[in-house]
Amino acid sequence: MNVTPLTSPLSPEAFLDRTRYPVDEWEISEKQFDESDLGRSESIFTTGNGYLGMRGNHEEGHEHQEHGTFINGLHETFPILHAEQAYGFAQVGQTIVNAPDAKTIRLYVDDEPLSLRDSELLHYDRTLNFTEGTLKRSLIWMTPSGKKVLVQSERMVSFAERHLAVLTFTVTMLEGNAPIAISCQLLNRQDGKDEYGVFNKKDDLEFDPRKTNSFTDRVLQPQIFWQDGPRSMLSYRVARSGMTVAVGADHYVESEADVVERSSIDGDIAKHVFRLQATEGQSVTVTKVVSYHSSPSVPARELVDRCRRTLDRVETEGVSLQFDKQREWLSEYWERSDVTVEGNPAVQQAIRWNLFQLAQASARAEGHGIPAKGLTGSGYSGHYFWDTEIYVLPYLTYTSPRFARNALRFRYNMLPAARRRAVDLNERGALFPWRTISGEEASAYYAAGTAQFHIDADITYALAKYVSATNDDEFLAREGVDVVVETARMWTDLGFWRHSGDETFHIHGVTGPDEYTTVVNDNLFTNVMARFNLEYAVNTVRRLAATRPEEYAQMANRLNLDENEVLEWSHAARSMNIPFDEHLGIHPQDAHFLEREVWDLENTPASMRPLLLHYHPLVIYRFQVLKQADVVLAMLLQGEYFTEEQKLANFEYYDPITTGDSTLSAVVQSIIAAEVGYHELALHYFHNALFVDLADLHNNTSDGVHVASTGGTWSALVFGFGGMKDHRGHISFDPRLPKSWTKLSFKMTIRGTRLRITVTQDSIEFEVEDGDSVSVSVRGQSVTLTSAAPVTVALDGQGPRRSGAPSARDLRDNRRADGTLITQSVPHL
Amino acid sequence: MNVTPLTSPLSPEAFLDRTRYPVDEWEISEKQFDESDLGRSESIFTTGNGYLGMRGNHEEGHEHQEHGTFINGLHETFPILHAEQAYGFAQVGQTIVNAPDAKTIRLYVDDEPLSLRDSELLHYDRTLNFTEGTLKRSLIWMTPSGKKVLVQSERMVSFAERHLAVLTFTVTMLEGNAPIAISCQLLNRQDGKDEYGVFNKKDDLEFDPRKTNSFTDRVLQPQIFWQDGPRSMLSYRVARSGMTVAVGADHYVESEADVVERSSIDGDIAKHVFRLQATEGQSVTVTKVVSYHSSPSVPARELVDRCRRTLDRVETEGVSLQFDKQREWLSEYWERSDVTVEGNPAVQQAIRWNLFQLAQASARAEGHGIPAKGLTGSGYSGHYFWDTEIYVLPYLTYTSPRFARNALRFRYNMLPAARRRAVDLNERGALFPWRTISGEEASAYYAAGTAQFHIDADITYALAKYVSATNDDEFLAREGVDVVVETARMWTDLGFWRHSGDETFHIHGVTGPDEYTTVVNDNLFTNVMARFNLEYAVNTVRRLAATRPEEYAQMANRLNLDENEVLEWSHAARSMNIPFDEHLGIHPQDAHFLEREVWDLENTPASMRPLLLHYHPLVIYRFQVLKQADVVLAMLLQGEYFTEEQKLANFEYYDPITTGDSTLSAVVQSIIAAEVGYHELALHYFHNALFVDLADLHNNTSDGVHVASTGGTWSALVFGFGGMKDHRGHISFDPRLPKSWTKLSFKMTIRGTRLRITVTQDSIEFEVEDGDSVSVSVRGQSVTLTSAAPVTVALDGQGPRRSGAPSARDLRDNRRADGTLITQSVPHL
Repeated sequence: MNVTPLTSPLSPEAFLDRTRYPVDEWEISEKQFDESDLGRSESIFTTGNGYLGMRGNHEEGHEHQEHGTFINGLHETFPILHAEQAYGFAQVGQTIVNAPDAKTIRLYVDDEPLSLRDSELLHYDRTLNFTEGTLKRSLIWMTPSGKKVLVQSERMVSFAERHLAVLTFTVTMLEGNAPIAISCQLLNRQDGKDEYGVFNKKDDLEFDPRKTNSFTDRVLQPQIFWQDGPRSMLSYRVARSGMTVAVGADHYVESEADVVERSSIDGDIAKHVFRLQATEGQSVTVTKVVSYHSSPSVPARELVDRCRRTLDRVETEGVSLQFDKQREWLSEYWERSDVTVEGNPAVQQAIRWNLFQLAQASARAEGHGIPAKGLTGSGYSGHYFWDTEIYVLPYLTYTSPRFARNALRFRYNMLPAARRRAVDLNERGALFPWRTISGEEASAYYAAGTAQFHIDADITYALAKYVSATNDDEFLAREGVDVVVETARMWTDLGFWRHSGDETFHIHGVTGPDEYTTVVNDNLFTNVMARFNLEYAVNTVRRLAATRPEEYAQMANRLNLDENEVLEWSHAARSMNIPFDEHLGIHPQDAHFLEREVWDLENTPASMRPLLLHYHPLVIYRFQVLKQADVVLAMLLQGEYFTEEQKLANFEYYDPITTGDSTLSAVVQSIIAAEVGYHELALHYFHNALFVDLADLHNNTSDGVHVASTGGTWSALVFGFGGMKDHRGHISFDPRLPKSWTKLSFKMTIRGTRLRITVTQDSIEFEVEDGDSVSVSVRGQSVTLTSAAPVTVALDGQGPRRSGAPSARDLRDNRRADGTLITQSVPHL
Repeated sequence: MNVTPLTSPLSPEAFLDRTRYPVDEWEISEKQFDESDLGRSESIFTTGNGYLGMRGNHEEGHEHQEHGTFINGLHETFPILHAEQAYGFAQVGQTIVNAPDAKTIRLYVDDEPLSLRDSELLHYDRTLNFTEGTLKRSLIWMTPSGKKVLVQSERMVSFAERHLAVLTFTVTMLEGNAPIAISCQLLNRQDGKDEYGVFNKKDDLEFDPRKTNSFTDRVLQPQIFWQDGPRSMLSYRVARSGMTVAVGADHYVESEADVVERSSIDGDIAKHVFRLQATEGQSVTVTKVVSYHSSPSVPARELVDRCRRTLDRVETEGVSLQFDKQREWLSEYWERSDVTVEGNPAVQQAIRWNLFQLAQASARAEGHGIPAKGLTGSGYSGHYFWDTEIYVLPYLTYTSPRFARNALRFRYNMLPAARRRAVDLNERGALFPWRTISGEEASAYYAAGTAQFHIDADITYALAKYVSATNDDEFLAREGVDVVVETARMWTDLGFWRHSGDETFHIHGVTGPDEYTTVVNDNLFTNVMARFNLEYAVNTVRRLAATRPEEYAQMANRLNLDENEVLEWSHAARSMNIPFDEHLGIHPQDAHFLEREVWDLENTPASMRPLLLHYHPLVIYRFQVLKQADVVLAMLLQGEYFTEEQKLANFEYYDPITTGDSTLSAVVQSIIAAEVGYHELALHYFHNALFVDLADLHNNTSDGVHVASTGGTWSALVFGFGGMKDHRGHISFDPRLPKSWTKLSFKMTIRGTRLRITVTQDSIEFEVEDGDSVSVSVRGQSVTLTSAAPVTVALDGQGPRRSGAPSARDLRDNRRADGTLITQSVPHL
């Protein structure tokens, strides 16, 4: 095996400009305003709760890359215009709507507007705090006439009250007297205009398939809107989808000076303008309490009433209580979720930012999915993908199982649409859409969309893990089983039998997670996961029959299930074709993957990366080259089916031909690198994932945070370095701490018992923080954990250790069992 | 081998309702007006010359399925809106424009309009005559007040003058006196409105990928327009493509009665209205002489001048001379092109209609391609495909080589665009677009478009056949060689080497002609044709170096060609991987075709055909099921590389899994069926091709005539039943007359010598009609033909004869060399 030395990896410190973004373990601050990368900071400083997201736009609303206020599930539809049509192509597109903006608060001093670009700022500071759950900004503005004004604002999207956001804006005259005006707005930015004209102008000629599309017709149709004293209300119907949304705001003012209020409203904008004559030392604070409600169908009138009730309650409870609830909620969150890495504050900060993003993306989604970008940007049109199940749900399952349950119930509610989609594709059972908001398939490019049938198994996988980690058989028996059965059905209908001595079951014409090869036969990942899906269906149905006969009978009747079908699942699972190349000792990514020419990545110029933005799909699809490594992911999800030798050989084969052009790649490479002994490579990949958005490593953080990667960083910490595995409910640990780490500590709740687990270079310690007892194993040794006392297990090292990184096999190494040698090249430039 | 009896085939008589469409060997007549299938008759009764096409719309312009006047190459462009974008996807769509309509002539008697739907017609007759080259219509109209009016019209698009069309309209009062008005129009039907409102309203929700798309914005922007006495002129600029078009018309009137003329014009319509008071027995004739000119770029002003010159010339020469020239032109055409089948007038009529369509599609294309629908309809957006080279050029090459040369020069002129497209796909050399008008790729669905790299070889193939049949080395040396070299270059860059004892050359990620499997590896058709392309390039370059050293040197310099590259072509050609399955004795359609599940066509309901309109591509692509048989086509084009046994085995394997959902399928199946001995099946397929449009067998003749199929019927007659082969310039015959045919006779020009070849059940006769001498062979026996006397060679039968048709192999037969048995099924409904 050739080995490439790791180029000296960036230290975590160095990923960010630390004068601008200093290290702090519990918050992230920005110390300079820089207009050149507004998009990144807007994503990074988003506040949200899984239901409502406010992108980190500045209050002034002028300097911006993309204004964004997102309500999970609030979307518009549009007819997909296929350049060439074919039967069964998705016909209706879905895209998240820019909900009315309540963030905008403009300041005028001496009738001059505050402008981050043009005004002289003596001080600038913006901080997202992970325990307060607030975004605070503090500026000192020296006006052209030499006056000094302190401008402080705070923004909170409430975890405790998902329809609630609170914004405060305080202006203090540090030097000089001046007239001050504060203009608070509710503004339809999807269709309307503000003082600075049209927003979100995108260059239509720019090409990036990962971005969203835009509308030219009016999307938000004004319904009821009114003002009543300090309260404003706007409501809309979304033109084609028929959804409704309402936003209401109350305004509270405090000042020593006399404040005059004037308000105005039309269908697209509500304004409350507060004017005062401030003398030096005086200040004014405007507090804006905002409520959003949305619905697929109820009239705007009803939503207006709901907003009113939220606002009335806050009026009664008081604003400061809302901030208290936020702290309390987050305190509990960190109590069950925190991960610490000793002596590494830059890593610690980034970990907490990632975990905070997971709360912001998922906590209060309740009834909706978790979009690929959370509620931080409009990338991927706000769609839900398989990322949720494979990258986010492991974290939620082991730390906030209720959030995981909500995400799974959302999939259960999508079953009718998934059944319809299966019919479109001539399959039995259910086929979950590759990308969707409403539950209907919105993927217009089947090769890297509809053909990813594996999503059915991914959903069942997440469900199985959740049930195993929680013992929530109630949910499984009542709802989950329908997902399990209908997905198993899809697999037996999709595949077919080949009889050759033994019978083998084959699945053709599918795309695995790796989108650099598409529509292939017997994709290893797909077949491994389909086998899991079928086995789990058999076991679930059998267990249900044995333990809950009444619910079993109801289910069998509801789903028209008979024993023959269960036997067929079992037979197909046992006979599933799992491609393996004896000579190389590796699992080909698909039946014919190894027959492809090898892309010479080492000699591909950096300017041609990512490949998808520089090569036609037909070029990429011809080669052995990966966006992310399917087989490596299969080894993570179904590790018990691979030997240690296979894991090492597979990793060493695929790692050098994996571009990592997908942000889903690095975390998985990290976990398996750690398992097979490439600890430092694992750390390298981990850093790439940890800082993918904070350091904008893929140059598209402006479209929103890569939520799957935030989930993956937790998986890399716990499954990778922590070496935790959950094979069929059996929890085991085999840690892989990098050399430079002295201590890794994480929380995990298993069947109601919350553990704190601490890995050092020579031991692993378990402490039961809450609940009774749980049994786990450490490197084969069984350990029973109780609340009586912590348990420490000594470790003899951190597994095998290999240096550097596997390097691309030269042609000699690429000789196959049949003696074939395949050329390696870079497509002609 | 299982055999399915042929269901008693339809007699040629029975394909059409013979009371409506009586049999006549030299024309096709319609004896009843039937509004229910206007689309079909509009296509069938088109008049055209390859440059200008007038769809068979009725003069009144009211009852219609689609109005159509097409000028070859006159197109509009539009941005392709990809539902999901990727690098290298075609960005600009092209679609043929509906040129201003000069066909419309409305008649009013007693101020009542003649309406085919509402008026009482005592007589109706419409005839397209293949020797006159005219479409004539004759009606007797009984008006509501009981008057009888004879209405005769004639329409000719001139073969002799490609910018010219002549229309006459004669009204005779058979009984009664009445005021008559005849309104002649030039009308922009692309954007304008006529008396009956908007035309060509299509149901946007209707789904058929084979149809064209429509515009909502104005396409034809009026430029200069004027009237001057009996002359009208309209001209336009096409909005986005910037092309220009002008149409002018002169009007001549003859009548015993006094005729008053009034004319009017605006940017979208020019009218000349002729009024008279006709008494019984009187008649009036209006003759409309029309000229069209179009250009990619010259100003409309210049085109108007060109129209004027055409009209002036006709004014000088007289109208009747134009009809004489038309007859003369067609007389020469039939002299060198006719095919006769003795004693079978229904077949004879259909053959001549097909051959007439070929003239109408290609004769005066000159500088343009031959669209898939000719100039008969807007199907496939007026695009040019590989159909031209493989289905139409054989006929032109052997009967009207000048037309073939023009079509090949058109491809030569596309080389710069093809070089650009190769760069988009990271290939060297040239990649011809899958579908185009302008030369740029317009295929927006790469799987069944861009991936069909075989088009490069198809073009070189047609060029090679043309050069071989004409000895036009001049063209080859000066222009053709550039196509040959640049296409060969593309193949060596696209493919790659596998070293395994011997080196083999592989081509991955391509789609063959069969669009029911896409993006496959080592597609047999593609590899066989690429091998041809490479070999021909080697031979051409070598021959050029030997015979025309100066031109060789220029070419080598122009194309930067060195000897190493030629050696690489030669090496790749010799090492080309040609998939073959030893056990089945067949050539798999691609490397992994035989691993697919087999689609059970016999048990697929007719309501689910064609498959492409009822199954998602992902479903179809998973199966062994064909739209058209690639391997069978390869055996036609490169027959010398297949043994007789292989031909039989391949045909018997593929025929039962071929749906024939493409009209390109039947003719090829017919030819190879005849060669391997299924004469009656060959006849069955031949009839299906011969009547595909006349009997609307694919239910889409309304979109236009299937020009490839018309060319294919000639191939089926000559290559199939006539058994003619041209292997590397060696012409041979091995006839396969069906039992029911007594005599087949056809013309063929080989290297300047025109032959008449007559096949009977026991002989083949050659007569040199023009030119010197030529050598051919008959079943291995060499024959030299001279103008001295006809030569007759006795035939011992018509080759092997097998009954019925091959039937789908049952599972036993489907066992492969490795013992594998694959299931057979119909996708779940």
